[in-house]
Amino acid sequence: MTHYTKSACIRGKVLLLLALRYDLNPMIPNLELMAKAIQLSHESMNSLSGGPFAAIIVKDGEVISEGTNSVTAWNDPTAHAEIVAIRRACTKLQTFQLTGCDIYSTCEPCPMCLGAIYWARPKALYFAAERTDAAQAGFDDRFIYEQLTLPVHERTLPTMQTMREEAARVLKEWISKPDKREY
Amino acid sequence: MTHYTKSACIRGKVLLLLALRYDLNPMIPNLELMAKAIQLSHESMNSLSGGPFAAIIVKDGEVISEGTNSVTAWNDPTAHAEIVAIRRACTKLQTFQLTGCDIYSTCEPCPMCLGAIYWARPKALYFAAERTDAAQAGFDDRFIYEQLTLPVHERTLPTMQTMREEAARVLKEWISKPDKREY
Repeated sequence: MTHYTKSACIRGKVLLLLALRYDLNPMIPNLELMAKAIQLSHESMNSLSGGPFAAIIVKDGEVISEGTNSVTAWNDPTAHAEIVAIRRACTKLQTFQLTGCDIYSTCEPCPMCLGAIYWARPKALYFAAERTDAAQAGFDDRFIYEQLTLPVHERTLPTMQTMREEAARVLKEWISKPDKREY
Repeated sequence: MTHYTKSACIRGKVLLLLALRYDLNPMIPNLELMAKAIQLSHESMNSLSGGPFAAIIVKDGEVISEGTNSVTAWNDPTAHAEIVAIRRACTKLQTFQLTGCDIYSTCEPCPMCLGAIYWARPKALYFAAERTDAAQAGFDDRFIYEQLTLPVHERTLPTMQTMREEAARVLKEWISKPDKREY
């Protein structure tokens, strides 16, 4: 374990003792895993594949997948670390649900990634840097969080609704579809 | 054009006339494209590849890509229609930015997809059904929107922050990195 995880280790142990003392259901981060993710984010940044972000997905102590931001290398604006890791984990586990998995992300997930995490339904999320840290480094995370809470007509993205009735008819058909596979 | 787009066509023309009358910069939806997307969402639902959603991306009148929800067919919780269409459009255009593109989605994008749309930076978004219609059909869109606005400790997803300082150090390094490719 590298030197910079020592203070975090002590913090982790103190949290665990407090949680046990007050009979809370403790979330115990695996600090070696988070340190590994931070190391990956650093390597990814230096390899010029994308932004300085990484994520690791683990289940029952076993690493299922790793992902690093690959937006610019892959020409894919959705290739954030968490999305890459989720897609790889689902391919490996042959499922679209990450039941029982923990996600470690080097940064608070942006709305796209947090949405993806909710759809994947893992057991828990551990993150390191905050959206404000990402914003200071020039990333739009905080801005997009703000945009999502605004009414459609107040957003910077020109947006218009049309043909709601016709599309809602298909959604209604889904409700009564007998052979659908829900997700 | 199928019969169910007629009322929408009239609505579109009225909107255009109003926009021109009041000297607004009008957003003019291409209703044939939205009707095509709705048709795709219906076909996708019946082919059991995923939920009843589709998206089309267009630039300068040319269709760049189509996407349908493929979550269950591909074992990929991120394979929503908009994400699929964005990734295909970016592959085709060899870019991670959809500058000048319009996105047509058969439903108001969920937070994951709206986040992806913001990262892709298209010109405009047109959508048909609302998040409430999706919720009525059993999809979590509205629930995830609500979760995203909550403080971390109030969310249903157990979440914990750790090692912020170490991760933020990498983000700070990114700021002064001379050869970075911003996105």
